[in-house]
Amino acid sequence: MSLETLSGQSEKAYALLQEDAEKILKLIEVQMTNLTMPQCPLYEEVLDTQMFGLSREIDFAVRLNLINEEEGKELMDKLERQLSALHESSMEQKEKSQ
Amino acid sequence: MSLETLSGQSEKAYALLQEDAEKILKLIEVQMTNLTMPQCPLYEEVLDTQMFGLSREIDFAVRLNLINEEEGKELMDKLERQLSALHESSMEQKEKSQ
Repeated sequence: MSLETLSGQSEKAYALLQEDAEKILKLIEVQMTNLTMPQCPLYEEVLDTQMFGLSREIDFAVRLNLINEEEGKELMDKLERQLSALHESSMEQKEKSQ
Repeated sequence: MSLETLSGQSEKAYALLQEDAEKILKLIEVQMTNLTMPQCPLYEEVLDTQMFGLSREIDFAVRLNLINEEEGKELMDKLERQLSALHESSMEQKEKSQ
């Protein structure tokens, strides 16, 4: 196995986590637009499971000292803010279309 | 940030994943003995969510080249075998006690 600095791994880890957060956001966006209502329990379950998965990845990266706890917390917080904005705009759209 | 070889990180990553698999096994063991029946949907949900979390960690470690795909697959397979043995022995115990 080749030698690599921990710092290079850190950058890669952070980029992967951002990608994964991005994927969750896209998944929820698609779900909101096409599949189910945000009030649907299935929607909540998918979201909770996905958020749990990402939190496990972040926790794992923190334990490997690839990212620090603060960075991990920010990643989760940012995704939560984005999801909540998405949820609100989807609600507004539905109200307008009624 | 200190320099560390990728190989040291790999070992640590693998050990952490094994620990996490061990934790899931313990959690399910406690649930089986004390809380709910294995037929209970809540039990299935907890197990599925936990397995999903571990699979996200493993996938993340694979993408960082910390473990290879084969090692990741083996970790999941081993845990699944252990859970299934646990499930069977719990069923046998319940049958005996009836």
